[in-house]
Amino acid sequence: MINNINNWNDTIVALATPYGVGALAIIRVSGSDCFKIVNHLFPKKILEKFPSHTIHHGFLTYNNSILDEVVLNIFKSPKSFTGENVIEINCHGSAYIQQTIIEALIAVGCRLAKPGEFTQRAFLNGKLDLTQAEAVIDVISSNTEASKKAAITNLKGGFKHVLSNLREELLKFSSLIQLELDFAEEDVEFINRQSFLLLLDKLISQTTSLYNSFKLGNVIKNGVQVAIVGKPNAGKSTLLNTLLNENRAIVSEIPGTTRDTIEEVINIDGVIFRLIDTAGIRPDATDIIEGLGIERSREKIQIADLVLFLFDINEYSENDLLTVISEFKDKNKKYILVANKIDISNTNASNEFPSIPNIIYISAKDKLNINHLTSRLVEMSVDGDINTESLVITNARHYEALSNLLSALNEIKFGLQSNLTGDLLSIDIKNALHYLGVITGEITTEDQLDYIFSKFCIGK
Amino acid sequence: MINNINNWNDTIVALATPYGVGALAIIRVSGSDCFKIVNHLFPKKILEKFPSHTIHHGFLTYNNSILDEVVLNIFKSPKSFTGENVIEINCHGSAYIQQTIIEALIAVGCRLAKPGEFTQRAFLNGKLDLTQAEAVIDVISSNTEASKKAAITNLKGGFKHVLSNLREELLKFSSLIQLELDFAEEDVEFINRQSFLLLLDKLISQTTSLYNSFKLGNVIKNGVQVAIVGKPNAGKSTLLNTLLNENRAIVSEIPGTTRDTIEEVINIDGVIFRLIDTAGIRPDATDIIEGLGIERSREKIQIADLVLFLFDINEYSENDLLTVISEFKDKNKKYILVANKIDISNTNASNEFPSIPNIIYISAKDKLNINHLTSRLVEMSVDGDINTESLVITNARHYEALSNLLSALNEIKFGLQSNLTGDLLSIDIKNALHYLGVITGEITTEDQLDYIFSKFCIGK
Repeated sequence: MINNINNWNDTIVALATPYGVGALAIIRVSGSDCFKIVNHLFPKKILEKFPSHTIHHGFLTYNNSILDEVVLNIFKSPKSFTGENVIEINCHGSAYIQQTIIEALIAVGCRLAKPGEFTQRAFLNGKLDLTQAEAVIDVISSNTEASKKAAITNLKGGFKHVLSNLREELLKFSSLIQLELDFAEEDVEFINRQSFLLLLDKLISQTTSLYNSFKLGNVIKNGVQVAIVGKPNAGKSTLLNTLLNENRAIVSEIPGTTRDTIEEVINIDGVIFRLIDTAGIRPDATDIIEGLGIERSREKIQIADLVLFLFDINEYSENDLLTVISEFKDKNKKYILVANKIDISNTNASNEFPSIPNIIYISAKDKLNINHLTSRLVEMSVDGDINTESLVITNARHYEALSNLLSALNEIKFGLQSNLTGDLLSIDIKNALHYLGVITGEITTEDQLDYIFSKFCIGK
Repeated sequence: MINNINNWNDTIVALATPYGVGALAIIRVSGSDCFKIVNHLFPKKILEKFPSHTIHHGFLTYNNSILDEVVLNIFKSPKSFTGENVIEINCHGSAYIQQTIIEALIAVGCRLAKPGEFTQRAFLNGKLDLTQAEAVIDVISSNTEASKKAAITNLKGGFKHVLSNLREELLKFSSLIQLELDFAEEDVEFINRQSFLLLLDKLISQTTSLYNSFKLGNVIKNGVQVAIVGKPNAGKSTLLNTLLNENRAIVSEIPGTTRDTIEEVINIDGVIFRLIDTAGIRPDATDIIEGLGIERSREKIQIADLVLFLFDINEYSENDLLTVISEFKDKNKKYILVANKIDISNTNASNEFPSIPNIIYISAKDKLNINHLTSRLVEMSVDGDINTESLVITNARHYEALSNLLSALNEIKFGLQSNLTGDLLSIDIKNALHYLGVITGEITTEDQLDYIFSKFCIGK
């Protein structure tokens, strides 16, 4: 455990609810002097004497002026979110009142919390490990069932549990090797290297499956960027509107984050698709693919996970399409070809290009076959079940550490296979344990912690 | 008491904190079946058995899926805001989670609350009178010390108390007159009409002072609309920026309200000034007063409580200014004349127009004498102390009812003076009592109530 980061013995305060006007707002105060400090504004009762988990109504006053009529929620250390003494002040949801209460609390001894500092304290006080602390922000920013489920699994310690099992096995391993070293002169072999290889294969397989789950995890957490491209008259806006009308998502952006492109967000079968808005981008050239030759469209396609190429079925030949396909293949891009305007086509609209498989034939205007398109979008984005019950890695930091862990485990395996001596194996095992500790937060530096928690919003 | 409005025996739910992403959010549930309903999502404990004003941690689940990790605040009837059983669910501040919890609560028996319905129930259950219920929205929308103080005084029942005193006196009056009527045949006079006139004068004087306080109350609640006008090169933008830099207010708008004009809001000595933004409005003509001849500027000036006329000291003659002044006087508008650019004036800049009193000489660019201007703005807007400790009427509905009350009291006085008989006096007294009842909500119709509460936001 790391102590004395950010003077964490002082008492911190911040608004915990979204900024703005509402019926209620919550101001959170945490720290050892929490009761004493809030008591300055609530002088009629001795807050310290209230039992934990009780609610008290009254008026906050400062300098003989009433700040607000409030309800105080009392949480006593260690039975609180941070593990410290905590008071949650439920006040009226006026921005002015929120600000004056926070100012008064600062005047009587609080400090304004830094982003994520409440969760950071929960971590430092051992209430959460780092994977759980990181899950807090994922819960807040979750916007689908799958992203919420993954985040809550982590918050409940799902990942922590798996990691501590891995760790235990490695420690057992390590101590046996240590034993072997201690008795090195007697040339005893405590470890059956063959059964050890089996165990190691099991650990490698578990770690690999966690590592591989990140691809799904990333889709769950961040959604899928889709660039809709095509000539100006291909029907992009009509398709966008048709998709939005039936699938518009509840969008929840974390305050403070900005996006580089304007995008519309839809939710299909629980998968968030971020449709990169192409409105306003008009090609100067008349390439087969609008803008493949134009810088801005090139960028759109580059950042997209998936390109939806929309074309007017009445305008394209099979050869045109083969050119398009080869361009996408050259760029190593996932793509869907969508033939639009089958409503005004004279031919057998659903099989116009028999030699090119997987074209989806739609009418964006008449809403024909849109379900084919949405199914295909999901199919191409998610391998397996997005609503999986199994543990899924959604955090890039964990992904990186798992990658390092995997290398370390493979080093151990290689060492075993090459009959390396115990002391050399021991180094590799320490490496593996290190990367596990990095994920759970047992091994971190102040800078790393500050970086992780600075991504939180203030008040959490 | 009015019963059965809006089926108020059912259990209602709404988000109580501002919409958006934050660390926490509060979902409020109120109604007789509140515990039973929330228990469907929180099956491990029997919520009804928890004592009032206690806090309970756990997981909300629906259809075998975890909705969120939450904290439940339990309030038992009648010790709650609405007077009913209430649970406040503190959940994570994700818009998705908020919505799925509310949807699940509706699926298990709640109804989405209408705007103001929680406060309406508090009123209907006798927890608040109508002046206190109306104060709730004023507290939420308060954005200065004075507006908050006025609102909290009302919320605490300050106005209710004054009104019930008035009512008591009138009832005493009424019952004595009734007695007189009962013994009419014996020609006994129970009332000393002279001392009654004195009492009545006292009531009239109290009501008048409440009535008159509305002018201050309106400034406290709504601020002062100021139109800054002047020729394009007068320095309006520079002055606006100078004022904004030092006085920018914490602006809290009630969601759902719209304003007709774009305005910048500043706070000078606790008074909110709404500066009507003149950016983008450029005169086609070159009147002495920019736009006095132009429709849009005319409107700006018409809606303003106060017009700030800014001019370049080096461009205007005394005669020009006299024309300006007479135009304002014709329009019966309060105005301040502000001479700008004294920094580049060659003359005795602070007394350029000795024959015209009350001109304020400034340099917006060099920030000279800005304090003279801000003091004048406050002086001209507020008679007396905005931070007054006395009761101030801020609500137009109360103002109207007080006006009617005042007429009724004057009728009684006139009746006494004209030696009207007791039965005629009695009618006037009933009228006066009626208007008191309208303010406190003892006399209301369903429509009136719905109108009053529809101005609230959902969740309050």
